[in-house]
Amino acid sequence: MRIGELGEFGLIERLRGRLPPPHRGTVLGAGDDTAALRPAPGKLVLATCDVQVEGRHFRRERIRPDQLGRRAIAINLSDIAAMGGEPRHGLISLVLPPDLEVAFLDAFYEGAGAELARHGADIVGGNLSGSTGGIVIDITLLGEVDALRIVRRSGARPGDALLVTGNLGASAAGRAILEGVCPPAAPPDDDGPLLEAHLTPVARVLEGPYIAGEGLATAMLDVSDGLAGDLGHLCEASGVGVRVFADRLPVSEATRRAAARAGIDPLEWAVGGGEDYELLFTAPPGRAEDAAIAVERHTGTPVSLIGEIVTPERGRRLIWPDGAERPLAARSWDHFAGG
Amino acid sequence: MRIGELGEFGLIERLRGRLPPPHRGTVLGAGDDTAALRPAPGKLVLATCDVQVEGRHFRRERIRPDQLGRRAIAINLSDIAAMGGEPRHGLISLVLPPDLEVAFLDAFYEGAGAELARHGADIVGGNLSGSTGGIVIDITLLGEVDALRIVRRSGARPGDALLVTGNLGASAAGRAILEGVCPPAAPPDDDGPLLEAHLTPVARVLEGPYIAGEGLATAMLDVSDGLAGDLGHLCEASGVGVRVFADRLPVSEATRRAAARAGIDPLEWAVGGGEDYELLFTAPPGRAEDAAIAVERHTGTPVSLIGEIVTPERGRRLIWPDGAERPLAARSWDHFAGG
Repeated sequence: MRIGELGEFGLIERLRGRLPPPHRGTVLGAGDDTAALRPAPGKLVLATCDVQVEGRHFRRERIRPDQLGRRAIAINLSDIAAMGGEPRHGLISLVLPPDLEVAFLDAFYEGAGAELARHGADIVGGNLSGSTGGIVIDITLLGEVDALRIVRRSGARPGDALLVTGNLGASAAGRAILEGVCPPAAPPDDDGPLLEAHLTPVARVLEGPYIAGEGLATAMLDVSDGLAGDLGHLCEASGVGVRVFADRLPVSEATRRAAARAGIDPLEWAVGGGEDYELLFTAPPGRAEDAAIAVERHTGTPVSLIGEIVTPERGRRLIWPDGAERPLAARSWDHFAGG
Repeated sequence: MRIGELGEFGLIERLRGRLPPPHRGTVLGAGDDTAALRPAPGKLVLATCDVQVEGRHFRRERIRPDQLGRRAIAINLSDIAAMGGEPRHGLISLVLPPDLEVAFLDAFYEGAGAELARHGADIVGGNLSGSTGGIVIDITLLGEVDALRIVRRSGARPGDALLVTGNLGASAAGRAILEGVCPPAAPPDDDGPLLEAHLTPVARVLEGPYIAGEGLATAMLDVSDGLAGDLGHLCEASGVGVRVFADRLPVSEATRRAAARAGIDPLEWAVGGGEDYELLFTAPPGRAEDAAIAVERHTGTPVSLIGEIVTPERGRRLIWPDGAERPLAARSWDHFAGG
């Protein structure tokens, strides 16, 4: 069955039965003019939104609808985590071609709902609309954070250490494999983690609030545009420069092997690739090692010390062990560049 | 200049200079991973979103970009007002063809920003993305309401009176004129109010919180799908039936004249047209007249008593003075029907 046959209200009715369990703060979920939410006393409400456009951010033939649902939620979870906050409520707006199969929508909602439910968040509203082109997904996610614990991107100071969770470049490697730019591994199962990193990235939902709650970070943001691009945002917001040590960048063996097959330097993916959804944060110099150990012990996620914050005049540089340097140029993914 | 030439970050920088003044509850506006908002103590947070798709909800040749910005905000303001709430913060997601003129975006933001600022609300986030088709606009609006004053659509009881603000059918008349279904007036300026009603509807931002704050309503929602469709939502949520008196429906002289030119009964527009963004509410029988007078006195907006809530077995009927009846069939605007 196609969604055009079921119609807007038929679809809403159908989806209403598939929502994750309500959050304790939800006074009124989907179904009235608006949702009504009871904010936790003393906390700030966090609000973010992110759009995924078919043909630009994803291609229907390369990602299953349940993966697309998980992915669309995860990139918003990542933004909430990067402030040190916890996710609470999602609103899902979908613009869909009328000839789309209802099964696609069911699977999308299942993936999105499961990803929210896994972190205790619910779906409190949204919108379904017919498209004259491809699919457009817009998710708004609300979260909460202790007002005294929120971590902005503007707090980095010269002397701070620069740290990152997990590893970088795997998402770009996965994308390169999907796009045929990188030959698949033999056996192809070896590419599984790279494809997953790209298709269904894992937001650092535990790590962000832990880093914030323990007061470990002076600044934090998530790596969505790519290390170079996001470091640019951090440096601009904080009014600082940065030195990143090339040999410290955490790049997985699978990513290195894929880069070798593609005939490129894996650092290209680690520095410029983007969509890693790792957390990039700064910590006072004497406390960086302890912060890395504490995060890993508490969450199981490794943290790497990859650089240092310097004065703005010293710019943003990538440094090799032999002393060679190059500017960390932001090659941020521009959503108006060719699809 | 076209937006593709300026790029995502250039556009964001440009728009950042054109935002309405921040709301006092905004701790952190656009520019970090998320916005951070301080909820007012003791209030509920309201959240709603609404999508406008080019070719389905609007046509670029029929609406100026500043009008489109005002309209996109107004339909969300209307949802907040229908809960009895006040608007606080907007997030604006735009999916745009790269060849769109930057001037279009400037004007859109000016319209949207002015409409929010007029009601003390600000813009705290959003998203810009390239489109592979037409323009898609998704606005999320956050508001607040006193927890004891929120008005749902489920509170109507048999015996309650049914009331509506302003008048009905003007938006449908304006749409018919724009679409050439209705011949223009001579002189065409006479159509001005009808075109405005359709292009830049006025949300009942003062009326909703007043009705809620004074405890005048047992149920309320806004007329977006059309009187018949929205009454259907109210009746389903409340488990009631309704009798609407055809001769009580408030239809302006301009709407009646346009209907005469189009050769149709103006009630068709008033009952099935939709996009009126008036508030439809129910009040206990003995208090309805006083409620109507109080709203008009306080806000200047006339309120009409148009029907009564009955038991569900009696269905949903439109009644003429001569006793003739017809079912109030929901002909809700279905966003998956032809564009």
